[in-house]
Amino acid sequence: MTYCVAIRIDSGLCFVSDSRTNAGVDNVSTYSKMFTFGHEGERQIVILSAGNLATTQGVIGQIKKDIKQTAQTNFLTIPTLEDAADYVGAISLEQQEKHTGGGAKYEASFIVGGQLPDQKHAAFLVYPQGNHITTSKDTSFLQIGESKYAKPILDRIVGPGISLDTAALCGLVSMVSTMRSNLTVGPPIEVLIFESGSMSVEKRYRFEESSEYLRQLNSSWDDRLREAFNNLPPIAWSRAWDKSVEN
Amino acid sequence: MTYCVAIRIDSGLCFVSDSRTNAGVDNVSTYSKMFTFGHEGERQIVILSAGNLATTQGVIGQIKKDIKQTAQTNFLTIPTLEDAADYVGAISLEQQEKHTGGGAKYEASFIVGGQLPDQKHAAFLVYPQGNHITTSKDTSFLQIGESKYAKPILDRIVGPGISLDTAALCGLVSMVSTMRSNLTVGPPIEVLIFESGSMSVEKRYRFEESSEYLRQLNSSWDDRLREAFNNLPPIAWSRAWDKSVEN
Repeated sequence: MTYCVAIRIDSGLCFVSDSRTNAGVDNVSTYSKMFTFGHEGERQIVILSAGNLATTQGVIGQIKKDIKQTAQTNFLTIPTLEDAADYVGAISLEQQEKHTGGGAKYEASFIVGGQLPDQKHAAFLVYPQGNHITTSKDTSFLQIGESKYAKPILDRIVGPGISLDTAALCGLVSMVSTMRSNLTVGPPIEVLIFESGSMSVEKRYRFEESSEYLRQLNSSWDDRLREAFNNLPPIAWSRAWDKSVEN
Repeated sequence: MTYCVAIRIDSGLCFVSDSRTNAGVDNVSTYSKMFTFGHEGERQIVILSAGNLATTQGVIGQIKKDIKQTAQTNFLTIPTLEDAADYVGAISLEQQEKHTGGGAKYEASFIVGGQLPDQKHAAFLVYPQGNHITTSKDTSFLQIGESKYAKPILDRIVGPGISLDTAALCGLVSMVSTMRSNLTVGPPIEVLIFESGSMSVEKRYRFEESSEYLRQLNSSWDDRLREAFNNLPPIAWSRAWDKSVEN
């Protein structure tokens, strides 16, 4: 499995992805799931991928091929991120069906984010069916892969007004929380911070399995969560259940 | 959807369940998903249910019918909880296939817990396929339904040595956390605390939608989680990514 999240706030975007792929728990490999396309200072598109590895590699391969061949639609000339999401949806469907005729086993999801000339920064989630959604003022993050473990903390912290550092920290916390509950999500963890208008993907970081910070963050979050729980008020038991109502 | 959890600790069992059922978000009803069978002071079996409502009602109906007709296998004479889990698995499969021939739409999961004469207290999770698992020293809780949102907090707090009050509070926190992230899980929330050896299900509580405590717990957990996040150390950025490696 995979866990990737993109957070879209007023000041920019933050992308976090794990690097574990697996076909069963005994066939585990490491592949980056974060890809960037663009020219520094001009345009940047970031892609996060989840799902069938053959499909996601096929899609990334096609994107690179279209750039190389300066196809009519390619990431270095495409005018809007919405068009980019449409394009990724279309080639994802193509790749899912190419060798296999398609089916749930070959599905993949993508997050497509970044900023193009004369456009606002944005992020889209491309479903396996090829269609897509974007963020809103009320929903500032998009997740693909094993998204549920981390949703409670994102729901509580992420909003359009937080800082990029807070977004990155929250993305990392959501990642360590997911890793703890699901073995098939694992390091290296990649983080990319995109400041609106910078058109730069230079702020890309990678935390290896051996990362002391990742270990500290995990144990610190463990302690803080336990503390949070221990500081809750005791249960105020409501009236005891009237046994005659049921059974 | 549904969220139910059973926590099995040294001193007893704690069961927590929501009461929302739905067929699409515009067909939402309220049904208790917690059922108890036994004689006070002698034997107690508690069932939590998730999945297709016709199947779960069919299973509970069959359990009651078998008791009424003093069938060879029934909950008031069955010798072990493992046998009870087997029995629930078998009638669950029967009910899934009865009218429809079966299929994922008709599946249901159950938690079967409690204590029978001369036996230890225990809990089992019965899968839609009819087979079951139980708890261990390392895994002290079982969940059915929308289990992922709440797993991170349970993973961190629940162990065999915690008190029944702590188990109940953690079960409730896992419930409010799930409700916040998933609209199809909702009150009334039921909690049953079973002290080992008591053979009593008298400690059963119900928190209505209007429950002031539930509202307070939710907002308190919100605050504590935000505090936990705000108390984390800032990110120690690892070496910046070497761009030459990828893309």
